[in-house]
Amino acid sequence: MLFSENLEKLIQSFNRFPGIGRKTAQRLAWYLVAQDKNFALNLAETIKTTVESFKTCSQCNMLSESDPCPFCISPDRSDSYLCVVENSSDIQILEGMNEFKGRYFVLGHLLSPLDGYGPEQINTAMLLERIENLHPSEVILALKPSAEGEATIHYLWELLKDKGISITRLSTGIPFGGDLEYSNLNTLANAWKRRYTVQ
Amino acid sequence: MLFSENLEKLIQSFNRFPGIGRKTAQRLAWYLVAQDKNFALNLAETIKTTVESFKTCSQCNMLSESDPCPFCISPDRSDSYLCVVENSSDIQILEGMNEFKGRYFVLGHLLSPLDGYGPEQINTAMLLERIENLHPSEVILALKPSAEGEATIHYLWELLKDKGISITRLSTGIPFGGDLEYSNLNTLANAWKRRYTVQ
Repeated sequence: MLFSENLEKLIQSFNRFPGIGRKTAQRLAWYLVAQDKNFALNLAETIKTTVESFKTCSQCNMLSESDPCPFCISPDRSDSYLCVVENSSDIQILEGMNEFKGRYFVLGHLLSPLDGYGPEQINTAMLLERIENLHPSEVILALKPSAEGEATIHYLWELLKDKGISITRLSTGIPFGGDLEYSNLNTLANAWKRRYTVQ
Repeated sequence: MLFSENLEKLIQSFNRFPGIGRKTAQRLAWYLVAQDKNFALNLAETIKTTVESFKTCSQCNMLSESDPCPFCISPDRSDSYLCVVENSSDIQILEGMNEFKGRYFVLGHLLSPLDGYGPEQINTAMLLERIENLHPSEVILALKPSAEGEATIHYLWELLKDKGISITRLSTGIPFGGDLEYSNLNTLANAWKRRYTVQ
């Protein structure tokens, strides 16, 4: 064994993260052993403390250190707007806009019956309960425009359309900075269909 | 504070890794808290065990759990070939070829006087001692063809050229699978100059 088994274990752990291939995992693991030990030991400690303190908010399903989470108890946020996201991490991304001041709900997964994610697995009952309690005037389905995202948006729309709530979704089209040349045909055809008058 | 301070610490730690931007760091941190806790706790433990057991090999300067490292004590490797690399991680990359069966030497850094990396900082004396002991017939300078890599190759060549050792470096040119269109001008001009007869 020319390379350390511990190092190999570390590489394989990093390799399990989404979007981290074998090469990047190797780079991360070697960085840890090459840096001053304190950085790595602090990281190990932070991982331990963080995952041990995280739980699921019983109101919105977000991963948080407190239950209810800070978003659910904040008096500065409006109950009139409920934003539905796939994952807790999406909330941090949306908060980066500094635009939305309503409440959130985390599905945890998109509808994907073939993978075993039906209506129960995406917390539909909990979402309905949340809507009963908050009485929002608008539910924003901030889900990604993939096949599974579209299916989930359609399913939730069917479920909520008769409740007198405005059901919205994020705009789809060419991303800013995106090239027409590099857009796929679905994106392009959709952007063409949804073209709007320049004012 | 709407997001956990621990999570923020975790994100900032991941953000310190080379090539990991803020967005990827957020994705990694959220993945850890969203996965089963055992994965994260095992990762923390592996980081701790690994960095605590790693030291520098006193012969080749490689980061390893033993001193001398497995490459320096292996009886299956030839002293006739000495491969000089920038970092320990480069050894793992080169070993992936399953081609080289000689010894290694890790500089730890390329020459970069403006950043404070002169001849002493890149372990020149230790390299000379290593060469005295091994009597290699070839020294392969497996350094990257950047400005700093070229400076280091040139410096080491000056240092070693009169010792009756063959001093070689990796070939430079268009990478396999690389497009002419996407090659930068330096790469292209160099590949043109180094063109060879097709046989």
